[in-house]
Amino acid sequence: MAADNEMVLFADEDICLPGSGRIPGKSWKILVADDEPDVHEITRIALASYQFDGCKVELLAAYSGADVKEILARENDVALILLDVVMERENTGLALVQYIREELNNDLIRIVIRTGQPGKAPEHEVITRYDINDYTAKTELTAQKLFTAVTASLRAYASLKTIEANRQGLERIIHSNASLFESRSLSQFATGVLDELKGILKLNLSTACCQTSLYAATTGGQDIIVLAARGDFKDKEGLPIQAVFSPELMARFQRVWDGEENLFAGDEYLGGVQTKEGARCLLYFDGCSTLSTVEQNLVRIYTTNVGIGFDNLSLTREIVETQKEVIYTLGEIVETRSKETANHVIRVAEFCYLLAQKYGIDPTCAERLKLASPMHDIGKIGIPETILHKPGRLTKEEFEIIKTHAETGYYILKNSKRQILQTAAIVAWQHHEKWDGSGYPQGLSREDIHIYGRITAVADVFDALSHKRCYKDAWSMDRIMELFKKESGKHFDPALMDIFLAEKERFVEINERFPE
Amino acid sequence: MAADNEMVLFADEDICLPGSGRIPGKSWKILVADDEPDVHEITRIALASYQFDGCKVELLAAYSGADVKEILARENDVALILLDVVMERENTGLALVQYIREELNNDLIRIVIRTGQPGKAPEHEVITRYDINDYTAKTELTAQKLFTAVTASLRAYASLKTIEANRQGLERIIHSNASLFESRSLSQFATGVLDELKGILKLNLSTACCQTSLYAATTGGQDIIVLAARGDFKDKEGLPIQAVFSPELMARFQRVWDGEENLFAGDEYLGGVQTKEGARCLLYFDGCSTLSTVEQNLVRIYTTNVGIGFDNLSLTREIVETQKEVIYTLGEIVETRSKETANHVIRVAEFCYLLAQKYGIDPTCAERLKLASPMHDIGKIGIPETILHKPGRLTKEEFEIIKTHAETGYYILKNSKRQILQTAAIVAWQHHEKWDGSGYPQGLSREDIHIYGRITAVADVFDALSHKRCYKDAWSMDRIMELFKKESGKHFDPALMDIFLAEKERFVEINERFPE
Repeated sequence: MAADNEMVLFADEDICLPGSGRIPGKSWKILVADDEPDVHEITRIALASYQFDGCKVELLAAYSGADVKEILARENDVALILLDVVMERENTGLALVQYIREELNNDLIRIVIRTGQPGKAPEHEVITRYDINDYTAKTELTAQKLFTAVTASLRAYASLKTIEANRQGLERIIHSNASLFESRSLSQFATGVLDELKGILKLNLSTACCQTSLYAATTGGQDIIVLAARGDFKDKEGLPIQAVFSPELMARFQRVWDGEENLFAGDEYLGGVQTKEGARCLLYFDGCSTLSTVEQNLVRIYTTNVGIGFDNLSLTREIVETQKEVIYTLGEIVETRSKETANHVIRVAEFCYLLAQKYGIDPTCAERLKLASPMHDIGKIGIPETILHKPGRLTKEEFEIIKTHAETGYYILKNSKRQILQTAAIVAWQHHEKWDGSGYPQGLSREDIHIYGRITAVADVFDALSHKRCYKDAWSMDRIMELFKKESGKHFDPALMDIFLAEKERFVEINERFPE
Repeated sequence: MAADNEMVLFADEDICLPGSGRIPGKSWKILVADDEPDVHEITRIALASYQFDGCKVELLAAYSGADVKEILARENDVALILLDVVMERENTGLALVQYIREELNNDLIRIVIRTGQPGKAPEHEVITRYDINDYTAKTELTAQKLFTAVTASLRAYASLKTIEANRQGLERIIHSNASLFESRSLSQFATGVLDELKGILKLNLSTACCQTSLYAATTGGQDIIVLAARGDFKDKEGLPIQAVFSPELMARFQRVWDGEENLFAGDEYLGGVQTKEGARCLLYFDGCSTLSTVEQNLVRIYTTNVGIGFDNLSLTREIVETQKEVIYTLGEIVETRSKETANHVIRVAEFCYLLAQKYGIDPTCAERLKLASPMHDIGKIGIPETILHKPGRLTKEEFEIIKTHAETGYYILKNSKRQILQTAAIVAWQHHEKWDGSGYPQGLSREDIHIYGRITAVADVFDALSHKRCYKDAWSMDRIMELFKKESGKHFDPALMDIFLAEKERFVEINERFPE
């Protein structure tokens, strides 16, 4: 097949660019700028079989300043310009030097002046005043001299390009911190790691890199769990590494695990890092061309950097989870005392979160409400058991005492500056207020009741109705909906009732997920 | 004064190095390696008045391969070597090229071959096989050619050095994340920021940089508070920026605040960053020489990067503080129910932390115990008020019920995987065990009681004794010490009693800090 043949040809022509793996069909671009066609011809002949670092050259021909500008606008990786001074104007060449360095801000391209009229552009002045890299008079330019000048220039270009690629890669790593350190979950973090890695290596011009990649780490237990994966390992997230890697890959992985921090084998990379907090992370990818030293170094730095991010996120997660569990424990303790079940507070939190999201509250506030709402009955700690556990109907006086729990809760929580506890204070205070002003303790109505209070009221009542209590059976959804329709605009905020009716399946789902 | 005169002379000689500010007394180092003294002499004459980029050259003379190696070992910033091929051996020069590039791994130094016997080292072969930057035959080397070769070489060296300095600065910024993201407090973070900044700029060869520096940020309120400061602003930590900056500096600061992200004015830098979380950070320093473009760019990147770190730390701090307050609230609620005061749990936490530290427990575990210990009586939630609040002596049966609070607390907490809650479960379960085995609920003795339990026992009893309760007066320190000496090895772990006796002042201090 023709296409196949072409591909093979390209593969044979593999040519390398500095700082990168071999890229098919690439070569060093040299721009010959001269108004004499002969010069182009001679240069072409002299460099016909020329190679540097295993790569041929591609000559681009410019006959005027305009040509040069047009070519440089089109081609972003010209390595060298062999530049005549006198073209359409006496100083065309020198003006181009300024244009390239100052307007294009291109410091990488090597500029070699070749002048036929040294009198018009004296060597001493030109090399001093202009940011060029070599100066020759055409009269003294032998094929050997051209060969030397081109080789020295391409070598310098390659060095600069390599360090520059490295610099860009490092900047990209720093930049990547912004997104990585923002991740809320390990899988979001790990996916970010693979995305950023691709970006970092792409800068170095490798093609088709990291088609298959994987980030794994210990997350508490002994196993290394796949947190994110691409290509061949797609959909392997959550599995231990030994269930994903082939035996051969496991053997190489074992070497990394046993001490070698990084293993570059052909187009494959395995990098392990032991984090300060004692976790172990693994970064794997293949499908690249062989990585250059610069790229290997970038990958090494990145692997370590990512380890720091992993630690950071793990610590934050542990604290967030602890905070959540402590709050739930607190809520449960209070509810257990008033004979509610442990899952009551979890369900209330989920109902609140759902209502808050659909109501359009800022996501951070919605999360805060989710965390705070389990504390809504905290004030019941101050209600005597005799009243709290009274089997029959409460007297008016007893009910007045029960009602104090809203204010008691508020006073327990209000002094904290922490936003979750401030949210909890509002919820404790206002979750028995009613839309029509007939609630307690303040008798607030409509929007004077904080949205946190309005939401928690719905969540709390729905949970009580939809579950069996010692004094009542569980209500059917139909019966609850009937009541809610009636209470819309009386007990409850009508907007929240609309949300409830539209999303009732999700409320039922939450009940099923956290049964009594 | 002589010393003053000398300083002025140096200042007049200001000479610049690439990628840095002006550095007094510096020049471009060129190593001339040739076994013919005449060549050294001619080179010296030709370059006598030579300058590149406003800087003179300093010629270093080597007459053999050994000389070259010795000089390169001593001087780490040689820009160019003018290298003869045939010296003590026919290939001395070429062997040196390999030595420099491969053994010294020095890719920055420019190597120009100057050979008197081109036959011994043919140009084509040499430029192809060796990593050199130019090749000339001495016969064709005019003063002008030398001038061009030296200028082109120094220019290339300066470019490489600039990008390399930038690369190193970026690597350093990445490296700095490791320490910055580990900071536990804002002031530790801010101090780290200033330290790392110094390191990042030092790489670029500036001298006496950042003598005065300052890092400030909003930490909740409107004011920008100084978090760390050096030099002139030393000891200004904790103050708002307007109390620290002069009116002139405040005016420049205002410009940064009003929109200009970075302000480089002479040897002064003011950089502001608005973080994603809405905080604002300010980085200030002076006392540097004027910063190069590379350095300015590094500082800009660093300022942004530090903003990310600041956000990260602020978020973690908010969560940690919330967690702490929630736990304390939980502890307080339980204690209030059993008529203890709110500060009881705070003091117990502090006593535990002090004992744990002095006992030599791992700092992370000590912090964990501090957070967990307020939950020690959480099981009392299950004790009926009639018993909990009984004014007189408890019956044997009632005391048996009271004793259940240890196990109840354990069951409430034990199912969590979170380390703080696991710690709290141990504390709840074992804080009434006694060293001699006479405690409850399990009757454990000696090291069978977890150190967390042994520590909390001391802390809890000390707090009860040293404060007034409805059933007893506050005991004097003397009386407590007498009891503790008696109970060492009976109720309490003798090692903890030794610590208590040695640190008794600090226990009294904590009592004074958190009074009833």
